Amino acid sequence: MDISEETFITNLGIHIRQLREKKNMSQQDLANDCDIPKNQIGRIERAEINTSVKALVKIANALDVEPKELFDFSIK
Amino acid sequence: MDISEETFITNLGIHIRQLREKKNMSQQDLANDCDIPKNQIGRIERAEINTSVKALVKIANALDVEPKELFDFSIK
Repeated sequence: MDISEETFITNLGIHIRQLREKKNMSQQDLANDCDIPKNQIGRIERAEINTSVKALVKIANALDVEPKELFDFSIK
Repeated sequence: MDISEETFITNLGIHIRQLREKKNMSQQDLANDCDIPKNQIGRIERAEINTSVKALVKIANALDVEPKELFDFSIK
């Protein structure tokens, strides 16, 4: 079954937030580590923006996970 | 170890091409199914653009795979 783009980015944002909190990192910590502004991190987590693959790679590196782990969640 | 963004999008493009060819789809078939222009499909496969999460979801739906499968490759 097709996944809606909006549903996917909502779940992705929640998943990124969970990974970040599991590392005990604040949005500011993550922003500093991946060189993405803190407000953009917040907007990705709240699914307010359709982020890019390169931004995801930077976030994955900062969270010390492989990029594919960012997409590894169950759709709710 | 950190993955470079350029290396990742290069490998992603190769992987998308492989998935598309496995389905015996041309770039035009994929473009039609996911409502993304054919030249943009080509640019994603050749890693000439830093595509968005929503575009990846559309491509995954058109290839009949889960979005996470698009990121499931070994970095070369």
